[in-house]
Amino acid sequence: MRFEIAFIGFGTVGRGFADLLLEKREYLKKAFGIDWKVVAISDIRAGSVMDSNGVDLAEAVRLTDSGKGIEGIPGERKGLDALETIRESGANLVVEVTWTNIKDGEPGYSHIKTALEMGKHVATTNKGPIALHYKELMRISSEKGGKLRFEGAVLSGTPVFNLFEGPLAGCSVASIRGIVNGTTNLILSEMGKGRTYSEVLREAQRMGYAEADPTMDVEGWDAAAKAAILANHFFGADIKPSAVARKGISGITLEEVMDAIKKGGRIKLLARAWKEDRGDVVAEVSPTWLPESDPLASIGGVTNALTFSTDALGEVTIVGLGAGRRATGYALLADMISIARSLA
Amino acid sequence: MRFEIAFIGFGTVGRGFADLLLEKREYLKKAFGIDWKVVAISDIRAGSVMDSNGVDLAEAVRLTDSGKGIEGIPGERKGLDALETIRESGANLVVEVTWTNIKDGEPGYSHIKTALEMGKHVATTNKGPIALHYKELMRISSEKGGKLRFEGAVLSGTPVFNLFEGPLAGCSVASIRGIVNGTTNLILSEMGKGRTYSEVLREAQRMGYAEADPTMDVEGWDAAAKAAILANHFFGADIKPSAVARKGISGITLEEVMDAIKKGGRIKLLARAWKEDRGDVVAEVSPTWLPESDPLASIGGVTNALTFSTDALGEVTIVGLGAGRRATGYALLADMISIARSLA
Repeated sequence: MRFEIAFIGFGTVGRGFADLLLEKREYLKKAFGIDWKVVAISDIRAGSVMDSNGVDLAEAVRLTDSGKGIEGIPGERKGLDALETIRESGANLVVEVTWTNIKDGEPGYSHIKTALEMGKHVATTNKGPIALHYKELMRISSEKGGKLRFEGAVLSGTPVFNLFEGPLAGCSVASIRGIVNGTTNLILSEMGKGRTYSEVLREAQRMGYAEADPTMDVEGWDAAAKAAILANHFFGADIKPSAVARKGISGITLEEVMDAIKKGGRIKLLARAWKEDRGDVVAEVSPTWLPESDPLASIGGVTNALTFSTDALGEVTIVGLGAGRRATGYALLADMISIARSLA
Repeated sequence: MRFEIAFIGFGTVGRGFADLLLEKREYLKKAFGIDWKVVAISDIRAGSVMDSNGVDLAEAVRLTDSGKGIEGIPGERKGLDALETIRESGANLVVEVTWTNIKDGEPGYSHIKTALEMGKHVATTNKGPIALHYKELMRISSEKGGKLRFEGAVLSGTPVFNLFEGPLAGCSVASIRGIVNGTTNLILSEMGKGRTYSEVLREAQRMGYAEADPTMDVEGWDAAAKAAILANHFFGADIKPSAVARKGISGITLEEVMDAIKKGGRIKLLARAWKEDRGDVVAEVSPTWLPESDPLASIGGVTNALTFSTDALGEVTIVGLGAGRRATGYALLADMISIARSLA
């Protein structure tokens, strides 16, 4: 399969994918019959370049890694915005990696919708559009034939959706629970060493693990968006992030964290989704006490993990990175491989 | 794809697979285009029945579950042994689930080899033949075109090989470590509650988790066979179980276990495999101290887990059951799906 790729967004995640494309060019060809060229890159900060004969991806990475724009790279056209790039680049695979917005999903939602309506394949790590518009986007994908993949929307490259496309395809899932937000897990882990919430939060902010406004993480919004995606994908629900029962960690005291440890366990911010007997799907996010024997209890720092309760295999837990340039870039690589295989 | 299945062995694992085949018949058809019928069952205790029009699988499960033989089931031929069944049943998929032997791999080795030489697909959970004869069997598979799958040889149905066929196919693996033997992990977990090795071993024997002769488990032989399989599959080695550097848990004292906990960690019996810089592959099994922050440290009881260190995704850990009728049966289902897909 030959992919002609348009990058919509070229920040950390896009460049992580670019790194892997460049490193693994021969392996992709040999193992999966995948050829690729990049026909366009459009980024709100770095600028835009389009060339149907191929854009120099290594040069684009080099320039943006040093904070420079990409419009000096040779190309047939420059300066097109994201939607123009999607419409005019001739790409068959749109890699949507702009910023996250879980209020209305924009601008990613319009990018993905436009691409799918043109029958293009889309790989994205952008959780906003998937959390908010899953049903509509899947419907368009199904109608127009372009595949939509979003492995990176929950655990970055650590497999979730591809796990059930592949090795666990023969299982059905009854419930899911897990640690899907690295920032809050880091804060709770550090509090377990006897430090207060505000002290740890300030340090996480200094180290770049938490935003200046940490609301998205500490109030559970990020986890709620991911819980919605899991509920909608695995249980056929149509739950928005705002409808997820949600409690964050900003009210957790050091005393509660230390008490949990004394009782032989840990408090973790869990995202959960399950289908009730009468068919209703529930998604929720809340700090939860887990006994030490639970595989999720020992997940420390920014590591993420999900436990799936399945019919054939009991509980299966996957543990891995939930963020990072290379790990999130890998999600897009896995999605590209998955698309190629689904069309083979 | 239409599978005509011959069961070679019809003990707990074979019946676990049979349960899932019967439960998921419609799903297999709808999701993967898989039709199946069982054309033969041959078991050293339950007897043998062959019918090219299909053997009544539900009846075979019912009879063997009540300790009865299967030769009363209607069928064209009765009483054939395993090799005759493989040669004469016309099956295109041989499910090899006889007993484990890690000295010479027999009789599973001859069953698998015979089937592969006839170009048949083979799914097995039998670690002996895979640990001892991986290279030869893979070569025959490759020459004759029948696929060889053995998901269940390491973690029962919890995905290992199918994980890297599917979602992690874009990663390369640098090293593997994990808990691959439930009995020893149960013993070490219980010793962590302050009980002696001999007390816990006796209880595990009473409960059926440990054999009367526990050597295979407690001296690390089972784990060594699995380490050899991992080394041979992931790193292209040709290591026999007897060549795995191996230390079991029979020499571990209660004092050592409690000391490990006092130091904020756990002793676990780890199987490990990796490729050294100059290309040599190493496989070993030994009791190892892990800090509490390691995802493997909290894996208690009979649960198994493997951590893969990868180039693109850092460390990925999969945790799940390592034994059981249904979980091991699922390995064969996953293998059947994988074979169907690889031929689609």
